[in-house]
Amino acid sequence: MDKLTVDAIRVLSADAIEKAKSGHPGLPLGAASMAFELFARHLNHSAKDADWKNRDRFILSAGHGSMLLYSLLHLFGYGITLDDIKNFRQLGSVTPGHPEYGVTSGVEATTGPLGAGLGMAVGMAMAEAHLAAKFNVEGYNIVDHYTYALCGDGCMMEGISSEALSLAGTLGLSKLIILYDSNKISIEGSTDLTFTEDVAARVRAFGFQTLEVNDGNDLKAIGDAIEAAKADTERPSFITVRTQIGYGCPKKQGKASSHGEPLGEENVRELKEFLGWNPDEHFVIPQKVYDYCGELGKRGEDARIAWEKMFAEYSEEFPDKRALWDEYHGDIDMEAILNDAEIWKHRDKAAATRSVSGDILQRIKEIVPNLMGGSADLGPSNKTVMKGAGDFSSTDRLGRNIHFGVREMAMGAVANGLMLHGGIRSYVGTFFVFSDYLKPMVRLAAIMKLPITYVFTHDSIGVGEDGPTHEPIEHLSMYRAIPNLVVFRPAEEVETAVGWQLAMQSKTKPTVLVLTRQNTPQIEGASREAINGAYVISPEREKIDGILIASGSEVALAIDSQKLLWKKGVDTRVVSMPSMEIFLAKDKEYREKILPSKILARVVIEAGANFGWGCFSGIEGVVIAMESFGASAPANVLFKHFGFTKEHITEVMTNLVERLNSN
Amino acid sequence: MDKLTVDAIRVLSADAIEKAKSGHPGLPLGAASMAFELFARHLNHSAKDADWKNRDRFILSAGHGSMLLYSLLHLFGYGITLDDIKNFRQLGSVTPGHPEYGVTSGVEATTGPLGAGLGMAVGMAMAEAHLAAKFNVEGYNIVDHYTYALCGDGCMMEGISSEALSLAGTLGLSKLIILYDSNKISIEGSTDLTFTEDVAARVRAFGFQTLEVNDGNDLKAIGDAIEAAKADTERPSFITVRTQIGYGCPKKQGKASSHGEPLGEENVRELKEFLGWNPDEHFVIPQKVYDYCGELGKRGEDARIAWEKMFAEYSEEFPDKRALWDEYHGDIDMEAILNDAEIWKHRDKAAATRSVSGDILQRIKEIVPNLMGGSADLGPSNKTVMKGAGDFSSTDRLGRNIHFGVREMAMGAVANGLMLHGGIRSYVGTFFVFSDYLKPMVRLAAIMKLPITYVFTHDSIGVGEDGPTHEPIEHLSMYRAIPNLVVFRPAEEVETAVGWQLAMQSKTKPTVLVLTRQNTPQIEGASREAINGAYVISPEREKIDGILIASGSEVALAIDSQKLLWKKGVDTRVVSMPSMEIFLAKDKEYREKILPSKILARVVIEAGANFGWGCFSGIEGVVIAMESFGASAPANVLFKHFGFTKEHITEVMTNLVERLNSN
Repeated sequence: MDKLTVDAIRVLSADAIEKAKSGHPGLPLGAASMAFELFARHLNHSAKDADWKNRDRFILSAGHGSMLLYSLLHLFGYGITLDDIKNFRQLGSVTPGHPEYGVTSGVEATTGPLGAGLGMAVGMAMAEAHLAAKFNVEGYNIVDHYTYALCGDGCMMEGISSEALSLAGTLGLSKLIILYDSNKISIEGSTDLTFTEDVAARVRAFGFQTLEVNDGNDLKAIGDAIEAAKADTERPSFITVRTQIGYGCPKKQGKASSHGEPLGEENVRELKEFLGWNPDEHFVIPQKVYDYCGELGKRGEDARIAWEKMFAEYSEEFPDKRALWDEYHGDIDMEAILNDAEIWKHRDKAAATRSVSGDILQRIKEIVPNLMGGSADLGPSNKTVMKGAGDFSSTDRLGRNIHFGVREMAMGAVANGLMLHGGIRSYVGTFFVFSDYLKPMVRLAAIMKLPITYVFTHDSIGVGEDGPTHEPIEHLSMYRAIPNLVVFRPAEEVETAVGWQLAMQSKTKPTVLVLTRQNTPQIEGASREAINGAYVISPEREKIDGILIASGSEVALAIDSQKLLWKKGVDTRVVSMPSMEIFLAKDKEYREKILPSKILARVVIEAGANFGWGCFSGIEGVVIAMESFGASAPANVLFKHFGFTKEHITEVMTNLVERLNSN
Repeated sequence: MDKLTVDAIRVLSADAIEKAKSGHPGLPLGAASMAFELFARHLNHSAKDADWKNRDRFILSAGHGSMLLYSLLHLFGYGITLDDIKNFRQLGSVTPGHPEYGVTSGVEATTGPLGAGLGMAVGMAMAEAHLAAKFNVEGYNIVDHYTYALCGDGCMMEGISSEALSLAGTLGLSKLIILYDSNKISIEGSTDLTFTEDVAARVRAFGFQTLEVNDGNDLKAIGDAIEAAKADTERPSFITVRTQIGYGCPKKQGKASSHGEPLGEENVRELKEFLGWNPDEHFVIPQKVYDYCGELGKRGEDARIAWEKMFAEYSEEFPDKRALWDEYHGDIDMEAILNDAEIWKHRDKAAATRSVSGDILQRIKEIVPNLMGGSADLGPSNKTVMKGAGDFSSTDRLGRNIHFGVREMAMGAVANGLMLHGGIRSYVGTFFVFSDYLKPMVRLAAIMKLPITYVFTHDSIGVGEDGPTHEPIEHLSMYRAIPNLVVFRPAEEVETAVGWQLAMQSKTKPTVLVLTRQNTPQIEGASREAINGAYVISPEREKIDGILIASGSEVALAIDSQKLLWKKGVDTRVVSMPSMEIFLAKDKEYREKILPSKILARVVIEAGANFGWGCFSGIEGVVIAMESFGASAPANVLFKHFGFTKEHITEVMTNLVERLNSN
């Protein structure tokens, strides 16, 4: 029955890919045995309650092998029907090309970008360790599960694999178990071409237990290795399973050509013949396979039922813990944030928005007890350290500060994993210029609708002496262009608090906070109206000759320019626009109120790339922005050098008003 | 004298950072000995001809330690004066915050983003191996040098370190020697917090020889290790040098606080006292130190003179080789590209622009014999394989195709290194959506003004079934916003050839070619005018009611819409805009000719984020673009689903013209 079921996965995957005329058969065929063994005899899971909080997590890091996962979820009764399988890769189906979180029951994470799943698995294992330490009491292991990931050669070639596994090793995440589908083939051919390293030795160097299964179809050996992995309570485990890509398809197995395209009708026939199936039948799975999987699934269902009983007792015995549990898994207390005097307090002096953010974080950490986060080795600079909240480590699972090391990409993936696990709210930080390194993971967060908070500081040439490699230019554009993401660049303290408010009240969008290194003056007109994305921070005196639009550290400069312009007889309005996308989502009436369309004399000021401001400046307006990379010099010298002075802005606006009036 | 000179580096670095009130003293103090030993007794270099083609390369991957390099270049006579050192981190100085290629004689690469230098060093070592195989003949080792890189803990935590070193190990780049400044401290504190892995074991797993020096001030041990590294002719070498960050500064050494801020006046005094220097003197280096460095420099100068003699003989004896050498180091034959019938040939059928690009590459590879490149394991998809040009490997150094593996970031860095070395022109490819992963290296290329060609295919929802994780949305915006970079998204074959023409004729800008997976029809009006960034590809019949602006695969759709609009009585012009930035750099007259400012009825069509089109659509116009992530379905289904149909475009334009006319 085991063989029949494993082959059912293969046949179903091949049929689905063939029908879609698109997909990746190589992995489902090669890795069917290990995935089946895991689902059948080890993974604690429940098709009846796929979101059971103490389930083992399984992440298919090699997401292109999605049919492997869909086949398993189908056979084990997760509600994916045969029709769904036939709709593989079609619009609106629950079986998209790559696994998508939130679309398909049983899919724990959106995967496809190679290696990302490993990082997310590390995040999930961290969440498990933290929540276990927080909630378990003797006799009640409320949180006690494993996190499994299945990866391929591609995942292991990606740099994120080293970043994530080095962190996992340091943290001693012993309940993280990785199955490495080692088939020695990638798209361009044999991995000998480019990947001759000793992968297991590398992973051992990170502090993992490494195990090896020489025959990828030997279920017992796979099962033994998984048990050995579980038995190590000090180290995470990495199981190398030697497989053959496209196994079972005589003309394709062991070849790169089986990776990413349908096998072809004739080859599917040969696959079925080789496996002893009827080659004339498609999408036909013997009932006994379903029955068998139903039997196998009982182990997980029983575990869930036992857990639910235990949890009910726990809730009764420890009502405080249960209340906290509900808090961890419920909504954030936004009233507390909105009414916290410290968050909204007024400073008398100029302050860097990163420092304001750091102050606010100290309050947020009290109001949001399940907040965990940290920086890629820049905590003291990013002001992302939660004081007194402890450091999450191999010896302190209660710590809420995470030391990610200089590993931005893994940090982004871990943030996703923490949030995907449930029970944890995550934030991460780095210099804005190095947000480049985790951008692929921010993109995944936006796709998965995870409300993560990104604290990106040192947001412009205001970085100063560190020079062009450390001065973000195009980064605002890069993030503003990502769908389902809010970029918020506050001008001062109130706007910074609004940024955090937005980040915390978000349920489906990540929030990118873009903060200064340098001090910015407090601004009289700044207000909670920033919640609208843009508002009039300093109104015109009598009439509007022109509008100055600015964000972040340039808002104060715009207000200085407004004053100088008054002296020149030009009456302007200053609009602070911390978030383009929020403003653009407002109704037309509000937008027209802030930026009346008849006013064409518009000057935008932002110390980033000018890209993307055209929809506000219009064809007539002017964008004062960076048109080159930055330079190495003190910040005030750079702002002057690149034209960010009230004199220059005044000149530009005066000329513009003149030109438009003379037309 | 050795100690005095090493301490001179320390004192000079501390003084410069103190004066600038900004900088990173920790590394210059800790790593002064190893860098001095390298420069003094091993590095083949010439201050008199810093660009000597056969010099050993030295890359300070830990670029924040720039004062270490500037001090060495100063002492060894590279033309950096004491005044330059006093101007550390000031506007326009040759001593910017991080080393900048092209700004400072002796700086081989712009570094600062951690780990990038390792990848660039791998690229340089690959260039050396290739050029040596190409040009050396018995008795004439014209190309025969080492590539050294100095990295820190931060570099080794970054994922790129694994990607790059795994590739180097596979390729057996034995002339690559890495000095690892292992001080066990990063910004957030001890590396025990987050980085307990066995770094040397990891690097051994990649196929490196690993060596260790236990006392970072033991010059002999360092020298011996370098010699042992050179002696291994099969494997690259990695030397772990145990140091103390901020060595010599009693109150700061061994502490994270010595990393990234000036030591403070009192600590600089104590440093000088500890080292036996006069604490009241600043920027004072004994003449004998200069004399000594002059002496030490003779070794390299002699080597250069001997090489020049050899090269003259070689040129005489092998005039063909010398001619080829000049071709490799000279300009590309643009006439040949412009007149090559195959590059500009007309196809009768629709074709994917990636396929057209692949055809063109087969010709370019003949015209540009020093072109090397490849893909991150997607060669067959990206059409980036140069047929018959061999695979660069440990056994074939003549191969010009590089198999990067699934290592986009290292690929980007290697492309930089190949170009920085001199003698090689590089290109790389991957799916456009995964261009995210190498974006930090593209940014560095743009900063360094390296004319690399990026072949990014599968450029929109046209990817189809692979779904949102594989469909680029914000990527065009991300690249268009980067300064000193050309993004070119051709509509069909002629425009694709123009893209390659631009890429090859560029001397100071990288070029990003953005190409379709799916077939696009050939277009009658397409022409070499695409060189202007935008042009009228299908003119209006009589008058301009509106303008349709499109790029890439949406141009043909715009032309279809134009025809339908004619039927509705709306006369439009279709503008193909493969490159915004080139068009925006044209004079006003040309821009006005293509997009007359009086025409406000403008509809932009691009299957990417709508961000950034506002400056062309204006406040009145409409941008038909992606406002969400993509989906998994056949490409034609997706284009329809997301509104990319002639019917929708026609409706939008008709409504727009009507609305504007009624105003």
